[in-house]
Amino acid sequence: MLHIQNSKEARKFIRTNQYKKQTAGIASKFVQGNICILPNIYKKDFYKFCNKNPKPCPLIGFSENGNPKLDKLGDIDIRTDVPSYRVWNNGNIIDEPQNIENYWRDDLSTFVIGCSMSFEQPLIDAGIEIQHIKNNTTVPMYKTNINCESSGIFQGNMVVSMRPLTIPNTIKAIEISSQFPDVHGGPIHFSNPEDVGIKNIMKPEYGDPPQKIAKNEIPVFWACGVTPQLIIEKLKLDFCITHKPGCMLITDKLNANFKVDLN
Amino acid sequence: MLHIQNSKEARKFIRTNQYKKQTAGIASKFVQGNICILPNIYKKDFYKFCNKNPKPCPLIGFSENGNPKLDKLGDIDIRTDVPSYRVWNNGNIIDEPQNIENYWRDDLSTFVIGCSMSFEQPLIDAGIEIQHIKNNTTVPMYKTNINCESSGIFQGNMVVSMRPLTIPNTIKAIEISSQFPDVHGGPIHFSNPEDVGIKNIMKPEYGDPPQKIAKNEIPVFWACGVTPQLIIEKLKLDFCITHKPGCMLITDKLNANFKVDLN
Repeated sequence: MLHIQNSKEARKFIRTNQYKKQTAGIASKFVQGNICILPNIYKKDFYKFCNKNPKPCPLIGFSENGNPKLDKLGDIDIRTDVPSYRVWNNGNIIDEPQNIENYWRDDLSTFVIGCSMSFEQPLIDAGIEIQHIKNNTTVPMYKTNINCESSGIFQGNMVVSMRPLTIPNTIKAIEISSQFPDVHGGPIHFSNPEDVGIKNIMKPEYGDPPQKIAKNEIPVFWACGVTPQLIIEKLKLDFCITHKPGCMLITDKLNANFKVDLN
Repeated sequence: MLHIQNSKEARKFIRTNQYKKQTAGIASKFVQGNICILPNIYKKDFYKFCNKNPKPCPLIGFSENGNPKLDKLGDIDIRTDVPSYRVWNNGNIIDEPQNIENYWRDDLSTFVIGCSMSFEQPLIDAGIEIQHIKNNTTVPMYKTNINCESSGIFQGNMVVSMRPLTIPNTIKAIEISSQFPDVHGGPIHFSNPEDVGIKNIMKPEYGDPPQKIAKNEIPVFWACGVTPQLIIEKLKLDFCITHKPGCMLITDKLNANFKVDLN
């Protein structure tokens, strides 16, 4: 893991191709984002899709018409500042590069979607152990049978991330994460994975498998910003670019600013 | 049920012995309170007990030295304004009167403890069906094996109230009730009742049995203001007075004022 807590410094490492792995725990006070880069023709529908599905797709940044900058989130060039990208063609991943300068086009729009990492530090601060952070692995993510609200061609099922927690910690985690509505908010399900169409909890479709779910723990599921990748895959779009799951854009926004503070 | 939504009017009915039953749904915008009336010699320890155990015993009102008034909560005379009382002697209930004027003494202190009814209306407003309210019964309450923090002679286990909810409604209910820390706040447990020492969920120690727990529901448990009654029973205090579980003091404080508002 990259042991850097300053967001600008972390991005400098990533920008110069010195780090290409998952970003959990790096600059952990700062908001990280899921990335979805689409040709302009899809822009309007996907923008509406995010607004209709704020739990999996809370939009925290946007640029259009080939502008690679995201000034509101920091001194960011989206072509270089993500550790690992996925380039998609007809539903297939055709490349996993460390920068996308060679793929950049003047008709691209960039969507930055909030990420549950923003509430993981507050959970840890409340004394809750997060298994995948402790083990330095990527959070397990699963395809579900939960339908998203459709917008134009964009339709499909939700992806969720999972953290195993005890029941008292589940209650605490719901209380805390619901204070972060712009980064997925409270969970969408807990306990029986089959209720949401997950057949094998030990075999996530994205990220790393959980180490284990202890007898006194239950799986707790949050809507996940990887959802657009599942939808893009199914849609077989001719071209788009995403981040590699777990390898996020690190912004200069503080997680604390995304908290709905209690008086 | 008494179909009165004005707190002052509801108290007038109760004060004149026209109503002696459970108060759920009556003047539902207003805070209701659990009552514990003790001789002065226990005052200091019980006050500390409440402060040490804010989940079951959130103190919202107090008077001492035989003062029956609770001006901060409304134009209340605690000797007449509760529908049904329990008079305790050596751990036994010796009377369940509609007023306690004959039992009143100059050395009594009154403790008013917040009640989960204050967050039930917000739950209903969020579209959550509450079984015991729909059925016009008293919420089921159970003895648990969860230890309270002790203070002087006051020690013992927590009483919890239970509402059966679906998993999505459990998540919503945790999010909402945690915004009401002065009226028990978020739940303390859900799912397996045996985890907290409850052997038969269909046989509550206080209130009415649940009608059923549906296949898609789990029992959700909140700390309950009836906790002092269990402790008093065990302590075999020579004298004290409580409300009859479910038959609460209706105050003039709005539930909304007990909410920690989101910005």
